[in-house]
Amino acid sequence: MKREIVLRGSCQTNSDIFYFTGVAVPDPFYAFTLRGKKCALVGALELGRLRNAGRLDEVFDLSLLSEKFGKGIRLDDTGVLIHLLKKSKIKAIVVSADFPALQLEKLRGAGFDVAVSEKPLFPERDIKDNFEMREIAKANAIASLGFERIENILRESKISGRKIIWHDNILTSEILRYEVEKTSLSKGADALYTIVAGGNQACNPHEVGHGAILPNSLIVADIFPRLRSTGYFGDMTRTFLKGEPTSAQSSLVETVIKAQKLALSKVKDGVDGSVIHNAVDDFFAKNGYFTEFKKGAWGGFFHSTGHGVGLDIHEKVSISPRKCILKTGNVITVEPGLYYRGIGGCRIEDTVAVEKNGMRKLSKYHYNWVIK
Amino acid sequence: MKREIVLRGSCQTNSDIFYFTGVAVPDPFYAFTLRGKKCALVGALELGRLRNAGRLDEVFDLSLLSEKFGKGIRLDDTGVLIHLLKKSKIKAIVVSADFPALQLEKLRGAGFDVAVSEKPLFPERDIKDNFEMREIAKANAIASLGFERIENILRESKISGRKIIWHDNILTSEILRYEVEKTSLSKGADALYTIVAGGNQACNPHEVGHGAILPNSLIVADIFPRLRSTGYFGDMTRTFLKGEPTSAQSSLVETVIKAQKLALSKVKDGVDGSVIHNAVDDFFAKNGYFTEFKKGAWGGFFHSTGHGVGLDIHEKVSISPRKCILKTGNVITVEPGLYYRGIGGCRIEDTVAVEKNGMRKLSKYHYNWVIK
Repeated sequence: MKREIVLRGSCQTNSDIFYFTGVAVPDPFYAFTLRGKKCALVGALELGRLRNAGRLDEVFDLSLLSEKFGKGIRLDDTGVLIHLLKKSKIKAIVVSADFPALQLEKLRGAGFDVAVSEKPLFPERDIKDNFEMREIAKANAIASLGFERIENILRESKISGRKIIWHDNILTSEILRYEVEKTSLSKGADALYTIVAGGNQACNPHEVGHGAILPNSLIVADIFPRLRSTGYFGDMTRTFLKGEPTSAQSSLVETVIKAQKLALSKVKDGVDGSVIHNAVDDFFAKNGYFTEFKKGAWGGFFHSTGHGVGLDIHEKVSISPRKCILKTGNVITVEPGLYYRGIGGCRIEDTVAVEKNGMRKLSKYHYNWVIK
Repeated sequence: MKREIVLRGSCQTNSDIFYFTGVAVPDPFYAFTLRGKKCALVGALELGRLRNAGRLDEVFDLSLLSEKFGKGIRLDDTGVLIHLLKKSKIKAIVVSADFPALQLEKLRGAGFDVAVSEKPLFPERDIKDNFEMREIAKANAIASLGFERIENILRESKISGRKIIWHDNILTSEILRYEVEKTSLSKGADALYTIVAGGNQACNPHEVGHGAILPNSLIVADIFPRLRSTGYFGDMTRTFLKGEPTSAQSSLVETVIKAQKLALSKVKDGVDGSVIHNAVDDFFAKNGYFTEFKKGAWGGFFHSTGHGVGLDIHEKVSISPRKCILKTGNVITVEPGLYYRGIGGCRIEDTVAVEKNGMRKLSKYHYNWVIK
């Protein structure tokens, strides 16, 4: 049975509706297919923007129709949508997994046969076109400015005993995060929740980092700016150290850099992501870096090697233990890491486009990590 | 019938779950009531934070239970929740309007009687306690730093013909927005999508402002920072002008300032918000400021006088044409405005707590608007 797609959400919280309409609408609204046409239903303030963007075949005027269909009573947008669907004799629709329960109930109450799709409604989002790749590369260029800022600050700083001093202040994760977020904002992207975590903090990948950054300690910086204009994300990670690394730290970082090169060399159309992930795992083990659960915490390499990136920071395509055949046009991160309490954490991440015979980097920043 | 509440979402997109748990969990998870106890179900990385926050009676360990209940197959969090509810012999639950459709289907498929609530699940969120009021006031103090920044920049700028020049650059909405967002970030709050709109742009309340800020032109700055730590919003608006106002501009701004004073003087426990809104409407009309739809656009006063503020920027309590009895502990904005193409826009907004015999401001910034 052919079902019409009905989407509901704001473009900030629902990437499908952003993908479908191409315009960053801040409040929840409906977008839908109707007999082969792409449509949306919005109030007067958004009408012009959606019509001008030209991605849709028809943009319905909520203010107008809520009076027209309501005959005296102002209908809400769900009421208007029901009228529009019935006028076109639509009986069966499909909504996404995150479609809101209340509107689901109302549509069913109005007699529609509504299927909830567990699978993505737009599997084509996995394959990026040139425009999307350029936007992702732009976002990564902004991430790179963040790394440059971190490096410059570390270079300008002085080590004083067990502290790093920058402009008379003790250098902290908060200061570095603020400087990265600020750089990103100035370029039109939100780099919210940038990770700048030092020492053992970086061994917990959910920790964004807090407090003093110590000398001679590994610093993981993970920057994923989102462009305000088009909603695309970049995603990159580098690891730095201010001072003198120990031999254990050097070995850890050099091993991760080599693991990333190994993984990148295996990316191409048709390869199973799990094969790449397992190769990284094996490479670490062969070099003596084992993954273990000890004293209530994981050590070693305990996250996936990569994930799809686009309008969502984490998309479905993966380089992980789960089988996933990579395809030309996929855009994915490649980000092996090693984490051991005592030594610290290291992650190196780039974003790449999968091609027929290999991959093309959509991110660019050097891999030097020691700053004197 | 007594129904247990089941919430699902991330704290960034679902304020109910943030209110219920008090911890900013970034990924979607479940929180729920169970025979009078407040519970959540999260992975290993969030367990400690939720337990330490002390707001919940029981925090269930997803990693542990997904293996235990799954007996070999790893259950997802919905599978684990179903086990937990069944173990406690729960049959009937209620979810919020924005609960995701897929999880609704799964819970119903598992035999639960699930009601979708059109009304808020936590009406008590409308009444703020002292902690919440302090957080909202903190966020407003950050908004005030933003106004100070704008004023200082306008003061440092020079008028050169039809342009305002700041540090050798043409001053734009983008520059001022960036400076406000930066100030806010440095204080631990996100002031995303701050409005800095000049001239006719400000006559469209959805326009965040773009391009050059002109001399002798009204500038509406609407700043609503959200504290990263606790999620509470502030919300304030001031209107500025660099140069010399016309008599029409002066009259417009002074009338809005008086209208806000009038509205503030009427706020107290037991008053119907619509009475206040209508008083503002009447005051404008009596002073010759009429509201009309002309040439495809509204002019005059065409938004509500105020709305509730808290973990959401727009909460249910309102000062609008809709009846809404204000209660002690409500926190609301009071923000009349006037917008006429040619003259420009003006809005003045503070956030206040409703008290038994009046109101208390939770925002503080002066009302001087002309900067030479």
